[in-house]
Amino acid sequence: MPFVDLNADLGESFGAYTIGADAEVMQLVSSCHAACGFHASDPRVMRETVRLAKRYGVALGAHPGFPDRVGFGRRPMQITGEEAETDTIYQVGALLAFCRAEGVPLRHVKPHGALYNVSQVTQEVAEGIVRGIQQVDPNLLVYAQPGLQLEAACAKYGVRFAHEVFADRHYNADGTLVSRRVPGALIQDPELAAAHVLRMVRDGQVRAMDGKLVAIQADTVCFHGDNPAVLANLRAVRRALEAAGIEIRTVG
Amino acid sequence: MPFVDLNADLGESFGAYTIGADAEVMQLVSSCHAACGFHASDPRVMRETVRLAKRYGVALGAHPGFPDRVGFGRRPMQITGEEAETDTIYQVGALLAFCRAEGVPLRHVKPHGALYNVSQVTQEVAEGIVRGIQQVDPNLLVYAQPGLQLEAACAKYGVRFAHEVFADRHYNADGTLVSRRVPGALIQDPELAAAHVLRMVRDGQVRAMDGKLVAIQADTVCFHGDNPAVLANLRAVRRALEAAGIEIRTVG
Amino acid sequence: MPFVDLNADLGESFGAYTIGADAEVMQLVSSCHAACGFHASDPRVMRETVRLAKRYGVALGAHPGFPDRVGFGRRPMQITGEEAETDTIYQVGALLAFCRAEGVPLRHVKPHGALYNVSQVTQEVAEGIVRGIQQVDPNLLVYAQPGLQLEAACAKYGVRFAHEVFADRHYNADGTLVSRRVPGALIQDPELAAAHVLRMVRDGQVRAMDGKLVAIQADTVCFHGDNPAVLANLRAVRRALEAAGIEIRTVG
Amino acid sequence: MPFVDLNADLGESFGAYTIGADAEVMQLVSSCHAACGFHASDPRVMRETVRLAKRYGVALGAHPGFPDRVGFGRRPMQITGEEAETDTIYQVGALLAFCRAEGVPLRHVKPHGALYNVSQVTQEVAEGIVRGIQQVDPNLLVYAQPGLQLEAACAKYGVRFAHEVFADRHYNADGTLVSRRVPGALIQDPELAAAHVLRMVRDGQVRAMDGKLVAIQADTVCFHGDNPAVLANLRAVRRALEAAGIEIRTVG
Repeated sequence: MPFVDLNADLGESFGAYTIGADAEVMQLVSSCHAACGFHASDPRVMRETVRLAKRYGVALGAHPGFPDRVGFGRRPMQITGEEAETDTIYQVGALLAFCRAEGVPLRHVKPHGALYNVSQVTQEVAEGIVRGIQQVDPNLLVYAQPGLQLEAACAKYGVRFAHEVFADRHYNADGTLVSRRVPGALIQDPELAAAHVLRMVRDGQVRAMDGKLVAIQADTVCFHGDNPAVLANLRAVRRALEAAGIEIRTVG
Repeated sequence: MPFVDLNADLGESFGAYTIGADAEVMQLVSSCHAACGFHASDPRVMRETVRLAKRYGVALGAHPGFPDRVGFGRRPMQITGEEAETDTIYQVGALLAFCRAEGVPLRHVKPHGALYNVSQVTQEVAEGIVRGIQQVDPNLLVYAQPGLQLEAACAKYGVRFAHEVFADRHYNADGTLVSRRVPGALIQDPELAAAHVLRMVRDGQVRAMDGKLVAIQADTVCFHGDNPAVLANLRAVRRALEAAGIEIRTVG
Repeated sequence: MPFVDLNADLGESFGAYTIGADAEVMQLVSSCHAACGFHASDPRVMRETVRLAKRYGVALGAHPGFPDRVGFGRRPMQITGEEAETDTIYQVGALLAFCRAEGVPLRHVKPHGALYNVSQVTQEVAEGIVRGIQQVDPNLLVYAQPGLQLEAACAKYGVRFAHEVFADRHYNADGTLVSRRVPGALIQDPELAAAHVLRMVRDGQVRAMDGKLVAIQADTVCFHGDNPAVLANLRAVRRALEAAGIEIRTVG
Repeated sequence: MPFVDLNADLGESFGAYTIGADAEVMQLVSSCHAACGFHASDPRVMRETVRLAKRYGVALGAHPGFPDRVGFGRRPMQITGEEAETDTIYQVGALLAFCRAEGVPLRHVKPHGALYNVSQVTQEVAEGIVRGIQQVDPNLLVYAQPGLQLEAACAKYGVRFAHEVFADRHYNADGTLVSRRVPGALIQDPELAAAHVLRMVRDGQVRAMDGKLVAIQADTVCFHGDNPAVLANLRAVRRALEAAGIEIRTVG
């Protein structure tokens, strides 16, 4: 039976501040990644996120980010490979301790926000992240868009890699994402998102903005936890996948 | 053959800032504890400290502190047991990841500065710390002065406890430390420190400031890495212990 | 015509995190105090808060707090008078720069959360805060509950002081607040809050929890911006004051 | 009588961490800029730096940086013009409050490290910084290398600009600095630094690495406070300037 993973960023609240509808989203995804205290989250939020993942049987990953809380990890920073490596070890290790405490396996890592974007185009940063992951646990999976530096770094270091696609983003004919600044780049209608995801998962294709059909591999589909439409999108995508006989379960 | 452990706080540098003579101190102690990024240190310093401990065969512990970098973890804060527990899991877990990366076992935990002092007199905080330690690894030892809340919490949760004494502090007749604000509370002459330590380790006694001899158990002797006299004190104590046929090696 | 000031803590959002209904509350109070970046807020939020106060003609104050963002400034810390003084100068100065930029006068200072509570019972901290305020601008008012250390420090240094009362808190017969941990300590019904405020403002009395009527001076009435009932409470209190012919305008 | 300003970054210590020989450097420069708490410094260090500048009659400026303490503000970040503007208002305002407290005028602003470099090549950031400066005090001078975005932004907003040259850096024939990564880019011999500065200040020329003489305007000469040779360089430059009859005093 064909299957696909639905993933979301969760655990991004901080101290007195709440963000996202974690408990609701957790019931609709098959994997999630928890922020680790650099761009968002704190030790109480991290434990609660691990407990939520346990309660709903969702595969748990780490979501390390830049050390930029006021910018929510969304501002590109120029860091060295050594900084990427050690910041990854630190953040993944901190989350792993909560996993040990709660008896939950840590399954994967997905860099957050600007760290994701910078690492995808900066070999030194991508390799630093992957070396850091490998040193904490060589069995961890990396989730990222394929064809860029993170996939190459995983290949180089023998770390498993899951092909990630985006439920709410249009693609260019070369397989890259259409910039958010291009009008219409975001897919905001849940039914359109569902059709978009179904085409990627079932048919292995995406319709680029210029109308061309492009081949794509979808192991895991990303939903953004801070998107107000995330619950509607998730429900529509689940319905479409279930109607097509595609199982929703975690990758790896 | 009788033995005792000599310990020091290390790894307290941060970013562009260097503090302490870690490489020198590391060659004179049998155990050390590394700061974990809350009151001092950063991921690069943590890795370097783990590597130094490995190079010199020094037993490594975690040195979690209050989240107060500008105060270097020396200002008492009123935190809940849950905050103590989760901050401990986070910090010990982050260090443990560097230990895994370098193939170095993590052996013990000693709270830093004001967290040490607050936990010794606040049951809720002591128990939170010990529960956090236990959840990360129930085999970790706790280093602290006996007779106070940390020892009681270790007993309650079945966590191993090492009796810590201080090389450079005078004691009261009831076994507590003389406040630093009392003139003469600090032992600054290396030969006096050596005699003080030898009496505690070999004879199981300490001469209180009022002249009384008091029974004391010394599993591990604390040296403060940021004390300018730390190297001279360590050398004098080592000479005295070796002359008395007492081995210097880690506890547990 | 009799008058009273209604005040609220505002500008406590941070980066991607929003807290409070600032634009709505701003239209119902006559003075507010903006967080200054230590326990909450950031430079964008501070400027927006100054602009909101300007738009609605609300008197603006600074709301300095402990350097504890993850604890939202609500955890008591033990700091020196020098730390209180210099942290106050820094925070008030940063807000004052936004006031200069927007052409808005800075009128008062109210310490936030645990800094308010610690300073009220710790002479050294209260005097540090007041010396800091005085050095930035000796014409600034301090808002606080009278009879405690902040009032004494203002008297000592010649800084003006506004007597603050609480719209949603019960009082003891000695004029102190009933601890939040005592059942019923909080006044949650808007009509009861309105009656409570009216009695304090118009009659100079408060009915203590034991039923006694106690004399009280109310220059300014505090509403907590993060209380979900703040808008309902403010509307009820305004109606009661207006019906009684009491003007709502800032103190000083 | 011809004159020139000698400037240095100071006040970069933080909490328990000390960096630089501020008291010695302060006696050899005519202007300095104090870090403002984002990349380095804290409120105690800021006050002490203002007091040192007052004691030695040194013109004081603000040295705002990126919010990146662990990276000491040396890692480029991608920020918006609004972030540059508000972060500048905040940091300059905080320092200005210590100036008011100590009765010391604030004279200039120089961005620190990566913020300096990013702003010189990013119009939006340069303009944000200059708008921020202008809003705090339109009489403040900006110190920077001419010919780049900060000078253009000062011209656009009518803010005064001082031409900065570097005592320890070689130049290219187009007036830009030779990258630090080029061997020999740094001038490490104090006598060579003195000749280099004298040629720039007295002759209005710099000898580029390819041997060409290039015209240059030198209002103020930068010395890096964290360079171990800073004291030797400053003394050699002062001797050379005094021998040539060039007064050392602040610009503007």
